[in-house]
Amino acid sequence: MKRGLFITLEGGEGAGKSTNATWLADYLRSCGKTVLVTREPGGTEVGEAIRGVLLSPDLPAMNADTELLLMFAARNEHLHTKILPALEQGIWVICDRFTDATYAYQGYGRGIALSRIAALEQWVQGDIRPDYVILFDLDVTTGMARAQARGRADRFEQEHTAFFERIRAGYQQRAAQLPARYPTIRAGEALEAVRQQLLAVAERIVAEAAQ
Amino acid sequence: MKRGLFITLEGGEGAGKSTNATWLADYLRSCGKTVLVTREPGGTEVGEAIRGVLLSPDLPAMNADTELLLMFAARNEHLHTKILPALEQGIWVICDRFTDATYAYQGYGRGIALSRIAALEQWVQGDIRPDYVILFDLDVTTGMARAQARGRADRFEQEHTAFFERIRAGYQQRAAQLPARYPTIRAGEALEAVRQQLLAVAERIVAEAAQ
Repeated sequence: MKRGLFITLEGGEGAGKSTNATWLADYLRSCGKTVLVTREPGGTEVGEAIRGVLLSPDLPAMNADTELLLMFAARNEHLHTKILPALEQGIWVICDRFTDATYAYQGYGRGIALSRIAALEQWVQGDIRPDYVILFDLDVTTGMARAQARGRADRFEQEHTAFFERIRAGYQQRAAQLPARYPTIRAGEALEAVRQQLLAVAERIVAEAAQ
Repeated sequence: MKRGLFITLEGGEGAGKSTNATWLADYLRSCGKTVLVTREPGGTEVGEAIRGVLLSPDLPAMNADTELLLMFAARNEHLHTKILPALEQGIWVICDRFTDATYAYQGYGRGIALSRIAALEQWVQGDIRPDYVILFDLDVTTGMARAQARGRADRFEQEHTAFFERIRAGYQQRAAQLPARYPTIRAGEALEAVRQQLLAVAERIVAEAAQ
């Protein structure tokens, strides 16, 4: 049994990750792959309960390290009870956000030292990393306008513009370090143009997996 | 301003930590100390929400590493928003369970490598450790009978006897390594005799703090 590929979708608010996750899954299925679509920090019953604590607007602002530990707790559950068992069965996994989001939001966004994030990444994941990280890059103004149009902002979406600018820059830096593993989509373009870019990325991934 | 002392109470189920925490606080107040009594893994609004996830009998059994990360998330919030600010104001803090419980329950009990617990301890606490860990040592049969008499068992209390035996042995090993920092109470004795032991420990702590 050939191990499935682990593909994560990353980007700021309103970048269109969720919609495009569904589209990408349909495309991969049309190529004969079995696909699981999931998301961070939830995806499991325990993880969703943790997500409830993380996103609750009723709780006081939590210590940044606490937020980080909760993210990795949800990730650990998700990875070990859902993602890894699927990959081992040959299923391709598309995950809406993973550890790159932690580097971007908690590291670049909130200022937690990247080395402290790396320590937890290693503790939880060992050497497991996504095979591909598809980055939906979008200017912050457009992203926030799109997110607000979707309704009530959760706690993360109430943050300031400067915070989202730092997140975008963080994602871009990570993508620049490993461009082959981090294909980047210009998500500010019209939906059809975004789909064309994503199709090209998906075709490349399928071709590389067949080699 | 002289920093307060950080005292934790540890032990298995039914060992009488909670009742004795109140008694110890009253004693220390009678010695002129300002005292905060708190407990692990809660003690803060965020921590109590995490405790809700940890103890919920409605969630499926979680991965042992997930449980550990949640414990340390609650601990981080507790330590940085409540315990450390109190100590810095000269308040003495009595905490019903802390990191020794993690070594005992998750390490000795569930078999997580002690080195992995130590890595998270260092990540969250840096060099912060309790000044005294008062261990309420009790045979498992008596402890379980006492816990069951208190009503419905939560998820931890539904575990097997062998699990609690490993926990007790783990606590005893830790106490044996640093006996001056880990005064041990024979908690199976009658309440009056337990109080006499605890009084002796409390007198020693107050005397050492005055030096």
